[in-house]
Amino acid sequence: MNFCSNCGARIVVRVPDGDTLPRHMCEACGTIHYRNPLVVVGSIPEWKDQVLLCKRAIEPRLGMWTLPAGFMELGESVAQGAIRETIEEANARVELGEMFTVLSVPHVNQVHIFYRAQLLDLDFGPGTESLEVTLFREGEIPWKELAFRTISMTLKHYYADRRQGAYRLHADEILAPRGMSA
Amino acid sequence: MNFCSNCGARIVVRVPDGDTLPRHMCEACGTIHYRNPLVVVGSIPEWKDQVLLCKRAIEPRLGMWTLPAGFMELGESVAQGAIRETIEEANARVELGEMFTVLSVPHVNQVHIFYRAQLLDLDFGPGTESLEVTLFREGEIPWKELAFRTISMTLKHYYADRRQGAYRLHADEILAPRGMSA
Repeated sequence: MNFCSNCGARIVVRVPDGDTLPRHMCEACGTIHYRNPLVVVGSIPEWKDQVLLCKRAIEPRLGMWTLPAGFMELGESVAQGAIRETIEEANARVELGEMFTVLSVPHVNQVHIFYRAQLLDLDFGPGTESLEVTLFREGEIPWKELAFRTISMTLKHYYADRRQGAYRLHADEILAPRGMSA
Repeated sequence: MNFCSNCGARIVVRVPDGDTLPRHMCEACGTIHYRNPLVVVGSIPEWKDQVLLCKRAIEPRLGMWTLPAGFMELGESVAQGAIRETIEEANARVELGEMFTVLSVPHVNQVHIFYRAQLLDLDFGPGTESLEVTLFREGEIPWKELAFRTISMTLKHYYADRRQGAYRLHADEILAPRGMSA
């Protein structure tokens, strides 16, 4: 961030009066430009004993597998975002169940939220951001080709809870990989 | 948003190639300036049969009561943010319990997340954003002077669950009040 998005003047970074953290500030018009974590929303679309995964057509992690998910948009709820992303990435219509994981990823400033979901039909297929969309049984999950750790953590909790016969919310955080500066 | 925060050129609003929604775009440097919902994090600090509330020293809703909460910051988890806000607003140290509410508020582009929490001591007091910090029994809660609907919804679920003897996650959304354009 170099310029004030309000008035176009140069930005300075300092702690505003009464604040505790450095912020991007405009000394011309007085605007403080806060930056905050983003919410990623998605679903675990179930069909009998299978789960739907999408092969990513875009970076990062092009060619790897993910649950349908993406950035929450203005004007929608978490649940609406999860349904929308499932349509966009997999052309799949779902009925949402319970919220299942809320995973903070502080080193990339994100919170990933997944719902359990029932596929309403088998008429799905890749959206523009997916190369392929497929149903997997537990033994078929491509664990080493999953795109993000929030996906593998969500699926591990999902199968563990399924074996126990009871699903519950998992709120957790994912720490930076060793050697990552952030 | 009028100017590109990267290069300072004028912003235009249009749907980028391959996207579905209008975005704030810079045609000089090509940056797309996404805007997304913000996460508000807080706690329900418990002490025996009492809950800690803060009287707001700032707008909006100056003088009304709230659970300690505020915007999640970069580089922290949801849980770390809830603990930090409880310290900042009430100088109160808590041990977090379970995540309790995840409430979308689409008309203001926010998601409010509250944890149950145990106060570790009674050495609390107003931070700079609070006029007063007090413990309330259920019968004493100032229901008509609560600052936000996410606060009253969280407290209603809290007392309802407490009566049932079992707390569970409540993921819900709060619709715009009648007559609100957004």
